[in-house]
Amino acid sequence: MSAGSAITGVEPVLDAAGPQATEGLARVERRLREVAAGHGQLLAGHAGATIAAGGKRLRPLLVLLAAGPDPVDVDGAVRAAVAVELVHSATLVHDDVLDAAPLRRGRPTVWAEAGRALATATGDLLFSRAFAELARNEDAEQVRILSAASSALARGELLQRADAWDVAVPLDRYLERCELKTARLFEAACELGARAGAAPSSAAALAVFGRGIGLAFQLLDDVLDVSGPPERTGKPRGTDLLDGTVTLPLIIARDRDPGLAATDLRAVRTPAEAERVCDAVAATGALEEARGRALAIAAEAKGALPDLPADRRRVFGLVADGVVARYA
Amino acid sequence: MSAGSAITGVEPVLDAAGPQATEGLARVERRLREVAAGHGQLLAGHAGATIAAGGKRLRPLLVLLAAGPDPVDVDGAVRAAVAVELVHSATLVHDDVLDAAPLRRGRPTVWAEAGRALATATGDLLFSRAFAELARNEDAEQVRILSAASSALARGELLQRADAWDVAVPLDRYLERCELKTARLFEAACELGARAGAAPSSAAALAVFGRGIGLAFQLLDDVLDVSGPPERTGKPRGTDLLDGTVTLPLIIARDRDPGLAATDLRAVRTPAEAERVCDAVAATGALEEARGRALAIAAEAKGALPDLPADRRRVFGLVADGVVARYA
Repeated sequence: MSAGSAITGVEPVLDAAGPQATEGLARVERRLREVAAGHGQLLAGHAGATIAAGGKRLRPLLVLLAAGPDPVDVDGAVRAAVAVELVHSATLVHDDVLDAAPLRRGRPTVWAEAGRALATATGDLLFSRAFAELARNEDAEQVRILSAASSALARGELLQRADAWDVAVPLDRYLERCELKTARLFEAACELGARAGAAPSSAAALAVFGRGIGLAFQLLDDVLDVSGPPERTGKPRGTDLLDGTVTLPLIIARDRDPGLAATDLRAVRTPAEAERVCDAVAATGALEEARGRALAIAAEAKGALPDLPADRRRVFGLVADGVVARYA
Repeated sequence: MSAGSAITGVEPVLDAAGPQATEGLARVERRLREVAAGHGQLLAGHAGATIAAGGKRLRPLLVLLAAGPDPVDVDGAVRAAVAVELVHSATLVHDDVLDAAPLRRGRPTVWAEAGRALATATGDLLFSRAFAELARNEDAEQVRILSAASSALARGELLQRADAWDVAVPLDRYLERCELKTARLFEAACELGARAGAAPSSAAALAVFGRGIGLAFQLLDDVLDVSGPPERTGKPRGTDLLDGTVTLPLIIARDRDPGLAATDLRAVRTPAEAERVCDAVAATGALEEARGRALAIAAEAKGALPDLPADRRRVFGLVADGVVARYA
């Protein structure tokens, strides 16, 4: 349930989207570095490292794409993209504290380098800077959208912890958690971008698209945690299980295998034990069903795209394909 | 350095300020409870408990007082007051996680009741709700002010952790930490209130006042940590020392007592050892000097009050007196 990895191959999306998206992403990178450098040495070190390790920038890309090729307020779209990524980074820093995670994307986490206290404060700072950045757009509705998404992230984290180790967690509770932890920030990214773009009237429909691919993204992330292979995901199989996090593959599999339904997750303590549970889940065919659900959700999101010019529809379609291609 | 306790006797301030402040505070309480209750059972339990244990509401009171007896936007002033208190509460929840603090104001902390993960997420949620609340005022400048203060809080926490255990920490570094951790949110409270009030032109001057009494408040809090008595402060003397936090009394005392300057704070591990250091600090006369500095800062803040009607000047004067009276 880390939702860390991005889509495979942002390149086709950028090729299709044209120079505005590529230039926008470059500006987002510069601004993220400025924000990290602008608050003293301490933040520059820790937050800078987190920001630099931030992956493929899928959320800021969604903001820029939703703003369209010729946004009314280019600066505003870049600021919204930066704000969304800062909220995402803040969450990663806090998640790493809670998971006591030594590495993220092959780099030491803030927690590992600087300890719990500095990492907690660094996350708080990134949250605060996100809202400071967005406030410069002079649009209170944008702040409301981002804070709603940021609340959702925290509520998702609360749900995840509350449901930890419960192998019988209901499916709808799991889906609610995915909505809160992942889909809502994707949704906000699209909505914020559209508001800063040339077609704010498309905001609501693009938000639905964002929410859908966010949900598909999370479901596929959870499938990858069980299926591996580790050489591709960069982490051992069953990491979620060791955290007590019950995800879709196990939820499907437990109804097919009474042995899995009776598993005491607290007794699953080593990577080898987690792998054995992963194998049992895979043996039920649950991975294919979970993947199928995710693909259906992504397809539905594509279908729900608003009435946009064909080239823009194509770009969003490529984003959806990219999310799905993570699993191919 | 907990800055938890409020002024002694808010009553004289409320008596002098008139019904708007009292009614406003009652509305702030109701709204804080609504915010806590509006996000599911989990938050209602943990955040609700934190909010309920929130003390005398000095920061929201400052917002309401700065808005004046007849604010242009009463609802906006209440929302700003709620937002400031939510940021403060978020910080307290995270601080308690970092300090592994079992109690706050005699109640179990979120950390103690629900653990590190839930407490971290609860703090994040309170931060997010603060910005959601303030966004409803439709004034991007207010969001900017609050996020700057919230960034400052996190930077102050970073500084405190970076300087921990360093008995030789420079005075100006300590003062910077107090500014960031405490004074800036007091400043923001005054500025936000004035913007929602009848005299937004007084915002800058009231901000200076807020910053001054915030700084005095923190210095006196740090004196109380060394002086006690525990029956009054509700915690053993020397709590800061056990966290490795070096504050003004020790900074003054170390220049007078070479034994203190040579103290290895990491070796101070028990409440009894911390009390012995407190006694040594007190023996140098450092407490009187630290208190004198705080009183001078509070007096300066009073002197810097803008040209307001006499009754409003009197109310702010009573706030400054109340902050100082914590020590009397």
